[in-house]
Amino acid sequence: MRVVDLIRRKRDSGEHSPEEIAELIAAYTRGDIPDYQMSAWLMAVVLRGLSRAEIAALTEAMLHSGRVLDFSDLIAPKVDKHSTGGVGDKTSLVIAPIAAAGGLKVPMISGRGLGHSGGTLDKLESIPGFNVNLSLAEFRRVLETCGCALIGQTAEIAPADKKIYALRDVTGTVESPGLICASIMSKKLAEGIDALVLDVKTGSGAFMKKIEDAANLAELLVETGQRMGKKVVALITDMNQPLGRKAGNAMEVAESIEVLSGKGPADLRELCLELAAWMFFVGGRVKTVEEGKRLSSDLIASGQAREKFREIVGLQGGDVGVVDDPKRLAHARHTLDITSPADGFIAATQCEQLGSACVVLGGGREKKEDTIDPAVGIEFRKRIGDAVSRGEPLCTLHYNSDARLAEARQLVETAYLIEAEKPKAMPLLIYRVIGA
Amino acid sequence: MRVVDLIRRKRDSGEHSPEEIAELIAAYTRGDIPDYQMSAWLMAVVLRGLSRAEIAALTEAMLHSGRVLDFSDLIAPKVDKHSTGGVGDKTSLVIAPIAAAGGLKVPMISGRGLGHSGGTLDKLESIPGFNVNLSLAEFRRVLETCGCALIGQTAEIAPADKKIYALRDVTGTVESPGLICASIMSKKLAEGIDALVLDVKTGSGAFMKKIEDAANLAELLVETGQRMGKKVVALITDMNQPLGRKAGNAMEVAESIEVLSGKGPADLRELCLELAAWMFFVGGRVKTVEEGKRLSSDLIASGQAREKFREIVGLQGGDVGVVDDPKRLAHARHTLDITSPADGFIAATQCEQLGSACVVLGGGREKKEDTIDPAVGIEFRKRIGDAVSRGEPLCTLHYNSDARLAEARQLVETAYLIEAEKPKAMPLLIYRVIGA
Repeated sequence: MRVVDLIRRKRDSGEHSPEEIAELIAAYTRGDIPDYQMSAWLMAVVLRGLSRAEIAALTEAMLHSGRVLDFSDLIAPKVDKHSTGGVGDKTSLVIAPIAAAGGLKVPMISGRGLGHSGGTLDKLESIPGFNVNLSLAEFRRVLETCGCALIGQTAEIAPADKKIYALRDVTGTVESPGLICASIMSKKLAEGIDALVLDVKTGSGAFMKKIEDAANLAELLVETGQRMGKKVVALITDMNQPLGRKAGNAMEVAESIEVLSGKGPADLRELCLELAAWMFFVGGRVKTVEEGKRLSSDLIASGQAREKFREIVGLQGGDVGVVDDPKRLAHARHTLDITSPADGFIAATQCEQLGSACVVLGGGREKKEDTIDPAVGIEFRKRIGDAVSRGEPLCTLHYNSDARLAEARQLVETAYLIEAEKPKAMPLLIYRVIGA
Repeated sequence: MRVVDLIRRKRDSGEHSPEEIAELIAAYTRGDIPDYQMSAWLMAVVLRGLSRAEIAALTEAMLHSGRVLDFSDLIAPKVDKHSTGGVGDKTSLVIAPIAAAGGLKVPMISGRGLGHSGGTLDKLESIPGFNVNLSLAEFRRVLETCGCALIGQTAEIAPADKKIYALRDVTGTVESPGLICASIMSKKLAEGIDALVLDVKTGSGAFMKKIEDAANLAELLVETGQRMGKKVVALITDMNQPLGRKAGNAMEVAESIEVLSGKGPADLRELCLELAAWMFFVGGRVKTVEEGKRLSSDLIASGQAREKFREIVGLQGGDVGVVDDPKRLAHARHTLDITSPADGFIAATQCEQLGSACVVLGGGREKKEDTIDPAVGIEFRKRIGDAVSRGEPLCTLHYNSDARLAEARQLVETAYLIEAEKPKAMPLLIYRVIGA
């Protein structure tokens, strides 16, 4: 196999055999193929696409580039959830404890913030002491002990994905459904799970702005998971505005604790119950999704979910005191209200801008080396469909430095569309792609 | 400017400003942009294309990445010819001496063989002692002394092209009219010429198999040259079969000397007269192309062109004895006739295969490190339209080692299409794109 011939074939819209893809990925992971050839191939893939068979082969090759965890000795069903990312999406922090409290094992390997989108690891690290860098042995121990462990991608898990992802990020080759699918599924399948619930976001704050693109990705993900013998379901959910009322790492942990305490904003609570219910359903713990929702509600109402969260935090070295007293989390020193320029209704938000504003305040990274300020963030006071008066706060910026405040402010001020007419309500759960 | 943004823009079919292209090329030449980003951009360019303005900007940026020679102190018109390459194309060896004998200055920077296509430098090096690696000072001295000098691309000339070309070769990004145009024109314009004649090949032995692709490239080349204030003309000529009767480095030098001696095959002679005539015409040395042809014929008939070739060979360190006695050139030890499997007419040749057979015999390189055997090659005994009897030789392989003889033989045997009907004659000169 000459790599240049594979590149030329993909460039000319040809298809690769599973063996060719396996060899390409193995050789790249070993360092036998230079980055400049891989990036040319990736760009050809972005522009020419991958067939379903190629996506499956790529996922498998990336999965087997490293260790595939095996928790088959644990009797409980192993189930995870993955979201494609958005603004204010802290559902993992709520549903992982619910699922574990309900008897599932949740071996969750999460990511950091990417672009305007927050990351579960960054949120967890706003809990003082919380360690997301467990070894695989520690990961297993925490999982066995409390039914859930939350870590970052280690060097052993899908190293091909790690290497390819870093290259895609700097070569404009992120936006390919096939590459996104293989990246997500190779990591998730390496977790040794039986079933997976996918939350594919769509709208102005999602990577997939168009619902067709989200649906296409959802189908790819489900089909690829099924080819590997897993139970997979995908929900397509709305990301035209932030999820919940808060974006920013510590602020999102606080809001997650609210939901685990039976409070919190309705939209966030609704999505968490939906996702947890599907986890119970695909894990075989309940007969219907409705039953799963009732179980999830009960686990919150009884305090078991919140208690499970406290247990996880403790086992991973975090300050369990924050669960009872979220004020112990970092707080920003300053706040600034962004007010409405007009009377009317919130018709839409440029949700990606709201996420970017959070990054600009220090809540995310623009370069890999940037450090995160866990305290900063945005509190959203109005949602789509809400009436608003001129001068009334739309949201509140929580910040520590005014170095880039003007930039964040400008992003937020131009992110709200105010119109005279009340817009039509949009469902949070758009639709489902259900694996057989 | 973030490189990843430029890559993404091109990926999404956007257009770059001349300043962006200038900075991209300058930064890449300096080593400030890694190969993996450049190769992703190049693949996006191959699949999305470049506008005329982008091609002009790219040519200019690559041209100015190194030294641009200035021969404006030499009074005679500076004119060069460039061919896009094929099998048996030795016209440079004939027309450079004709043009210099007729009063033009020909500062010719040539290339090596590429794929199945031969290279002027490799052919010249089959003349014992001939040095194609002159310094720019020596290049000028030879040019001043005899009106023509023939060298390879130095490190000073268009280094961006050198670096980008090496990357394109291994990343499947050669086949882009815009990139090909910028590569050719940046090198040719660096020669300090006033005018340029382009021989764009089309057919089964050319890089541009389809006439529309050749025409498109010819127009791009002419337009780009004109934007830079040069007189440029492009001839589109047939490469559905080898040019002349011989392919192979020393064999092609011998055939060039035949033409310079008033002999040689009609097709090669005709194309040389045509190209030389256009050089005289665009150089302002004659009023019409017909007059240029007569002048070229006269320079051959009088022996002046051949004498000029001897002068160039001598000034560049070569054995001038080969001009009078081409038998002094290397000869292969063995020959093998490839015979016709049937009675009929030669209807077509897979000309690229004939060139590849020559490479397999050792006459070209498959890897950069390969050394060339100057002696080997193929003598073509039948041309398209010729009648042939079963068992009659189609061509003769000249070889030194039978290590890969079977492979070469197979390439040649499957390269001829024999049919019962005599095919329609095809003109050698297909048409012209004339710069204003």
